[in-house]
Amino acid sequence: MPKVAIFMGSKSDLDLVKPCAKILSDLEIEHFMTISSAHRTPVRTKELVQEMESKGCRVFICAAGMAAHLAGAVAAQTIRPVIGIPLAASSLSGWDSLLATVQMPPGFPVATVALDKAGARNAAWMAAQILALEDDALAGKIRQAREKMARDVEEAARDI
Amino acid sequence: MPKVAIFMGSKSDLDLVKPCAKILSDLEIEHFMTISSAHRTPVRTKELVQEMESKGCRVFICAAGMAAHLAGAVAAQTIRPVIGIPLAASSLSGWDSLLATVQMPPGFPVATVALDKAGARNAAWMAAQILALEDDALAGKIRQAREKMARDVEEAARDI
Amino acid sequence: MPKVAIFMGSKSDLDLVKPCAKILSDLEIEHFMTISSAHRTPVRTKELVQEMESKGCRVFICAAGMAAHLAGAVAAQTIRPVIGIPLAASSLSGWDSLLATVQMPPGFPVATVALDKAGARNAAWMAAQILALEDDALAGKIRQAREKMARDVEEAARDI
Amino acid sequence: MPKVAIFMGSKSDLDLVKPCAKILSDLEIEHFMTISSAHRTPVRTKELVQEMESKGCRVFICAAGMAAHLAGAVAAQTIRPVIGIPLAASSLSGWDSLLATVQMPPGFPVATVALDKAGARNAAWMAAQILALEDDALAGKIRQAREKMARDVEEAARDI
Amino acid sequence: MPKVAIFMGSKSDLDLVKPCAKILSDLEIEHFMTISSAHRTPVRTKELVQEMESKGCRVFICAAGMAAHLAGAVAAQTIRPVIGIPLAASSLSGWDSLLATVQMPPGFPVATVALDKAGARNAAWMAAQILALEDDALAGKIRQAREKMARDVEEAARDI
Amino acid sequence: MPKVAIFMGSKSDLDLVKPCAKILSDLEIEHFMTISSAHRTPVRTKELVQEMESKGCRVFICAAGMAAHLAGAVAAQTIRPVIGIPLAASSLSGWDSLLATVQMPPGFPVATVALDKAGARNAAWMAAQILALEDDALAGKIRQAREKMARDVEEAARDI
Amino acid sequence: MPKVAIFMGSKSDLDLVKPCAKILSDLEIEHFMTISSAHRTPVRTKELVQEMESKGCRVFICAAGMAAHLAGAVAAQTIRPVIGIPLAASSLSGWDSLLATVQMPPGFPVATVALDKAGARNAAWMAAQILALEDDALAGKIRQAREKMARDVEEAARDI
Amino acid sequence: MPKVAIFMGSKSDLDLVKPCAKILSDLEIEHFMTISSAHRTPVRTKELVQEMESKGCRVFICAAGMAAHLAGAVAAQTIRPVIGIPLAASSLSGWDSLLATVQMPPGFPVATVALDKAGARNAAWMAAQILALEDDALAGKIRQAREKMARDVEEAARDI
Repeated sequence: MPKVAIFMGSKSDLDLVKPCAKILSDLEIEHFMTISSAHRTPVRTKELVQEMESKGCRVFICAAGMAAHLAGAVAAQTIRPVIGIPLAASSLSGWDSLLATVQMPPGFPVATVALDKAGARNAAWMAAQILALEDDALAGKIRQAREKMARDVEEAARDI
Repeated sequence: MPKVAIFMGSKSDLDLVKPCAKILSDLEIEHFMTISSAHRTPVRTKELVQEMESKGCRVFICAAGMAAHLAGAVAAQTIRPVIGIPLAASSLSGWDSLLATVQMPPGFPVATVALDKAGARNAAWMAAQILALEDDALAGKIRQAREKMARDVEEAARDI
Repeated sequence: MPKVAIFMGSKSDLDLVKPCAKILSDLEIEHFMTISSAHRTPVRTKELVQEMESKGCRVFICAAGMAAHLAGAVAAQTIRPVIGIPLAASSLSGWDSLLATVQMPPGFPVATVALDKAGARNAAWMAAQILALEDDALAGKIRQAREKMARDVEEAARDI
Repeated sequence: MPKVAIFMGSKSDLDLVKPCAKILSDLEIEHFMTISSAHRTPVRTKELVQEMESKGCRVFICAAGMAAHLAGAVAAQTIRPVIGIPLAASSLSGWDSLLATVQMPPGFPVATVALDKAGARNAAWMAAQILALEDDALAGKIRQAREKMARDVEEAARDI
Repeated sequence: MPKVAIFMGSKSDLDLVKPCAKILSDLEIEHFMTISSAHRTPVRTKELVQEMESKGCRVFICAAGMAAHLAGAVAAQTIRPVIGIPLAASSLSGWDSLLATVQMPPGFPVATVALDKAGARNAAWMAAQILALEDDALAGKIRQAREKMARDVEEAARDI
Repeated sequence: MPKVAIFMGSKSDLDLVKPCAKILSDLEIEHFMTISSAHRTPVRTKELVQEMESKGCRVFICAAGMAAHLAGAVAAQTIRPVIGIPLAASSLSGWDSLLATVQMPPGFPVATVALDKAGARNAAWMAAQILALEDDALAGKIRQAREKMARDVEEAARDI
Repeated sequence: MPKVAIFMGSKSDLDLVKPCAKILSDLEIEHFMTISSAHRTPVRTKELVQEMESKGCRVFICAAGMAAHLAGAVAAQTIRPVIGIPLAASSLSGWDSLLATVQMPPGFPVATVALDKAGARNAAWMAAQILALEDDALAGKIRQAREKMARDVEEAARDI
Repeated sequence: MPKVAIFMGSKSDLDLVKPCAKILSDLEIEHFMTISSAHRTPVRTKELVQEMESKGCRVFICAAGMAAHLAGAVAAQTIRPVIGIPLAASSLSGWDSLLATVQMPPGFPVATVALDKAGARNAAWMAAQILALEDDALAGKIRQAREKMARDVEEAARDI
């Protein structure tokens, strides 16, 4: 019963996306991670969205590089929130995927986060924040995690 | 009892942001729109976030141009989802606000949407999609709106 | 029996796309121009591709702005050549649509031409050049048109 | 009797261009690959175009970096479709070659594909798609290749 | 007996290029201004270079927008210095023509100046500076012009 | 009694920022270097500014990557001069932090210097130049350092 | 006895720079505004720096467009703080002047502020903040101005 | 009696600039290469220009990274042609130096060539082309070099 579905466009995206799954695991949010392509497997992508939705999945996270249509293709199939992680996967350093993810036309928003691993992490946090609207325990965990981040800054400050 | 709070950094942003409030109104989502600045009124911004949150506000939408720190400043004060609308408010055409909004560090995501009016609309849709996770009537309205958008395409196609 | 199908993502793209249809008309290439959206009407887009293909359409031309997924969405549905016209439809001046059109992943090329009206014209010329591979009369018209362009340069040179 | 001619501007481009020839070979499309420069060997470039065309070559593929005039120079000599592969060959990461390839003036389109190896592959696919308009066997191979790409996605999805 | 030949790619470039001719006239440098296109009239361009060179023309100035191959095409035909003026002629604001003009491969330099009218002026000044290497009277005029520019600054300073 | 406070957003910024502290040490300017984050530790950041200011700190230097709100957050808390060092900390090579640092809205300037280590050095020099307005000995040291830089150029010139 | 010298590279910059002088006037900071060019009047620029410095000027503000060397040229002549205002004065929208102003080499910092009028204002504020280090009355005025900016936000918020 | 003076802003630029000197040596053009900085050694730069000019130097070549004012500073001191080589010396990949070199204001052109080593080579070729206007032997060598470049293309073509 995954609450969050993570799609990536290609197997080669896995290393950049893993930190997303790691944070969801740490927060004990059930999730399902798979590969599907907007162009190579449009039917699979569409069916996965429907299957995930029918199983109760509430947030979709899509990571893709280059023209990066995956998040938009998912957004066209569901009214559940779709979070997009642009990946730097060409010599254009992610400018391509950033613009192809964020500049969605009215009616089909993709909640775009930062590029690459920082974005993968933030996609997880954003998904958690959305789910926490109805889950006080999760909200507590996010607040604890933020407190830990703050303590980590203070500790790092002591070290230098 | 607003469900959505819309903050903009300056009164001059109002025209670009209005389409956001319009869509929320059309969807009968209670919202509160105000002006607050990350730099000129940091205390007001912080207090507004707390006040809105205590009143039950579930999603924050922040619109700002140039260095566009507003969405990030709000994201630092709440674990509710924060949506960022980058505005083109300098000769750099919004590249500045886009990057300052989307490239948030891990732990403090801003769900960034498109620039300017298209983004203002999509911020409203994204907020609605998040709220619709727990509101079937709203989900129905979003689906109807999407169906209307599709019909509008078909009608426009007939006209040309 | 259109040989070329022109899709645009929105009615507001019409002015930029018209020069494409004009050149096809001048070359007496039958074409069909319509509006369809990758996100608002994905089913319509898919069915139009199949319908056009079954009617003998050989080249697809897709014009879109912003995240500009339309050409890619069509390319995912057909192995007929797809030509993409990126449109400047946001404050980012077409950088968004250019990258979202040209940076397609392997296997699903979009033959990207210049931005806006220049690109609309070149989409028509590229479609004509493809069709002319099997149509000597059309090849002759293209060569004549190029000769006229050359004469126009010479005449303009005389005028200054 | 090559159906496709691949030109690259410099020997140093070979590694980036090879995937193009590989796909054409896999599809059993006869092709000829050579080096010619828009500026260092303009006469050779022109004569090669004429020679290739007289031998029945139907599609030209041109790869070049930096100012990347090669595809345009070829496009000026033939009305056969010209596909351009922009290469990242300077510290500007291919922004130079992308713009110099895609922003062709009306009448002389270059069907621009993605940068570097992804673009080299897509140039081959686009050439194949054009040739397949008159070659059902080739069309079948392209469809099979697409099916294999889809299966590869599914297999990769099983692996993670 | 023009010393400087000014080529522009299209009649629509004339307004941006005129300040170049104006400065050459002011400096009493004989020049010839015409329209020729790298792609529409490659033979004309080549022959004009040869004709100009045979008439004693010593410097070529080429202005073009978009993919802006004109200066490079001229540079491939002569070892006389070629100055390139990139023009902003698309929604990309001249980034396309700037890169297509300046990023020439080794052996075929184009002396690139600023975009648009400022560049048109500087192309004239650069041509004059090159010619002045063998023309003391011209050198004197350039020095006088620079002195006037300095006085103009001082006068403007007095006015504010 | 530090005269200069250096804040960086993350421990990972330390290597890029160290040259700043080194120059301040060389100039015998007392300084305090710590880590604080605009988003993870907003209260700490605010309190540090107040504490530093109460201790007599006169100039703040803030280094951050990505959305880089740190300098702006400090600028909102003090009317002491704030110098911002944008760091290249994502695949966008520092374009994100440069714009997020320099494009501050009226009333809250951040004195932005170059990216990365060059900027870290220049932040130190700028702080020193500000302090030297009231410290002739320090002014003398800066002038000596500049003389040494000039001699280093001359020596390097002799070596090649 | 000006405390601040404002230099601009050209008379055409005046409209963009005026808000800088206005704020200095409002704060009753004596200032001197003039035109001088890094290239057209290098001697004048150098002498003005020396003259201003000898008259007690403590901060230099330089505004320039395009290659924007003025701030750097002034920085090379003084160890007083130099603030740079990049102006959008070409079709490149100020990207040119921003980079030419901010990316100064180590030892010669230019405190770069935002582009155009927003930057002109911030140059004045930064100059004031530097002067206020030794001027409590001025510090009081800056704090009052910031309080007014905050009240203006609150009033604007009441109006919408 | 150097005909060409090559200035670079820093010793660290040497590797990128060496190919310039190599080509001048191959063409037997006397040249002088040194280090001088627009900001660290403005007097030295000015005096070197005068000294070189008095010794008969006819063309200046300036290489610099980042804000890259060197070529402009030299151009302000001489009416001899100045060629600028922008170097990629920061995380901005040379966009900074390219714009700071090419976007010179009217009256003070810098003949800008490509970035880095390709530009270093082209600076040498451009200098040679200028000198060859009055030196038929040199013109012959340039033509021979171009012929060799053409043969190298043909040989490379045979090898693949």
